[in-house]
Amino acid sequence: MPAEPFSIRLAAAITARTTPACIGLDPRRESLPPALGAAALTDPNELARACARFCCEVIDVVAPLVPIVKPQLACFEALGPHGMTALAEVIAHARARGLLVLADGKRGDIGSTAEAYAAGWLAGPWAADALTVNPYLGLDSLEPFVQTAHERGAGIFILVKTSNPGSRDFQDLTADGRTISEHVAAGVEALAARTAEGGTYGAVGAVVGATWPRQLDAMRAALPHAWILVPGFGKQGGRAADVRGAFHADGLGALVVSARDVIFAHARPEMNAGLTDGQWQTAVERACRDMIERLAADTPAARLTS
Amino acid sequence: MPAEPFSIRLAAAITARTTPACIGLDPRRESLPPALGAAALTDPNELARACARFCCEVIDVVAPLVPIVKPQLACFEALGPHGMTALAEVIAHARARGLLVLADGKRGDIGSTAEAYAAGWLAGPWAADALTVNPYLGLDSLEPFVQTAHERGAGIFILVKTSNPGSRDFQDLTADGRTISEHVAAGVEALAARTAEGGTYGAVGAVVGATWPRQLDAMRAALPHAWILVPGFGKQGGRAADVRGAFHADGLGALVVSARDVIFAHARPEMNAGLTDGQWQTAVERACRDMIERLAADTPAARLTS
Repeated sequence: MPAEPFSIRLAAAITARTTPACIGLDPRRESLPPALGAAALTDPNELARACARFCCEVIDVVAPLVPIVKPQLACFEALGPHGMTALAEVIAHARARGLLVLADGKRGDIGSTAEAYAAGWLAGPWAADALTVNPYLGLDSLEPFVQTAHERGAGIFILVKTSNPGSRDFQDLTADGRTISEHVAAGVEALAARTAEGGTYGAVGAVVGATWPRQLDAMRAALPHAWILVPGFGKQGGRAADVRGAFHADGLGALVVSARDVIFAHARPEMNAGLTDGQWQTAVERACRDMIERLAADTPAARLTS
Repeated sequence: MPAEPFSIRLAAAITARTTPACIGLDPRRESLPPALGAAALTDPNELARACARFCCEVIDVVAPLVPIVKPQLACFEALGPHGMTALAEVIAHARARGLLVLADGKRGDIGSTAEAYAAGWLAGPWAADALTVNPYLGLDSLEPFVQTAHERGAGIFILVKTSNPGSRDFQDLTADGRTISEHVAAGVEALAARTAEGGTYGAVGAVVGATWPRQLDAMRAALPHAWILVPGFGKQGGRAADVRGAFHADGLGALVVSARDVIFAHARPEMNAGLTDGQWQTAVERACRDMIERLAADTPAARLTS
């Protein structure tokens, strides 16, 4: 892993591509382009191979356009051990194409177990640049991730306020005058500030869903040293204007995720117009460019210049 | 997967072995018995093979003694894709030896992603009998796990109050007169009751650390339909008397976990007395029997009869 901090590498990659768009890699058998023939596969290894091929071909399209991709670990785990081999290939391919890689696993566990997750994902065989982490177990459970990330020039994004309606159940409960997500945010900011080493951003970021625009504004204010990863753009209902609050005025500070709307763009008539099954990558490119344009039109990302 | 509910299969297995002991499988290179020669291995695949061999040989020892084993997914993930192949072998070996398998991954994500985790771990290629789940994302994020578990005769254990000191940070915050862990417990009980189908226990259990004896008492009362998984016995400081509260009077209702104290018993002088390096399995057997005896001496598990 490079010794240069993740926050510096991320800012450089966003500036180079002049967009904070992050493409989620969620290979789901039922949604893959028909040209890949995945629907007919019965052998688990062949299915995993088809998913790896799909992700690598998406990467080939988006690598010149965006700074980072986000493989969804659940989709690879659902394929069993062959899926994990596919995941390793997808990560390696993304890195070879110059993309940063954020492993979306929402991992979390106590002490030595958290160390094992951090070692595997951020410093070891998987070699991702960053990992999403769940804070429920408390600050001491986050420490091994923070340590490993900081030492290895990697990053973590801690769940603060998730995009689903049920995030209200526990994250919005109020204790001592603040919601649980605000308590978590305070912990995230402390960790981000501690690892910023005089720079703007630390090794620790926050996940805040695009479905909560007002909370995004408040979180940006509460998290001056943290990158904010914003899922829920596109399919989950968030619009470009809704994610404005996640940015700093200079167009940095936010990473906005779209997955299905881009990678399965062959199923969107407006992106697939005039294309054959075999041209699904063109639909992906159109959808990726559309996302980038919408972010540039309606958010401070317009101020990014390479 | 068998159609018989997990709760019924678990009760039968505990009754057959007359113990609620659950052995954690946490293969860590630095702790493996010297006889396995793992310290000298540099090839990732060879290291993963050594970890698989270790876990399978632990399983051979404990299978006649305990009802269930709990592979710690972090330890396998830390070994990369080869580690995941090793994990699949370990799960298959445990099942072949008649053990139930609880995959300890503390997974959690929104809707369709939670479905992918549930499909992979409980209904698909990994074929575990149960999975640990993190509730931070809210009740709608738990639903796909509950559905899949209920349909497939599998189980989930939702984190309620974890064993680490930092569990105070968010789980102990008080909102509307109850702690966050109590709010989560209320959700767990509702899901457990809904899936119990007239029986004592549902498909949904709770994780409550052995380090919080008074909270275990309260949680047992608050969770009448839930199995309680109790980590933190042994190395993490919990004693047999501390876990009494997790049981119902008939000796059922609790699963008590020990990992390092049993699987790395070769490093405990009192368990290793008189043994050579090559006899590490005897130390594992002694430590496993010691755990079982201590639970029988100090908890309602004494009332179990096969």
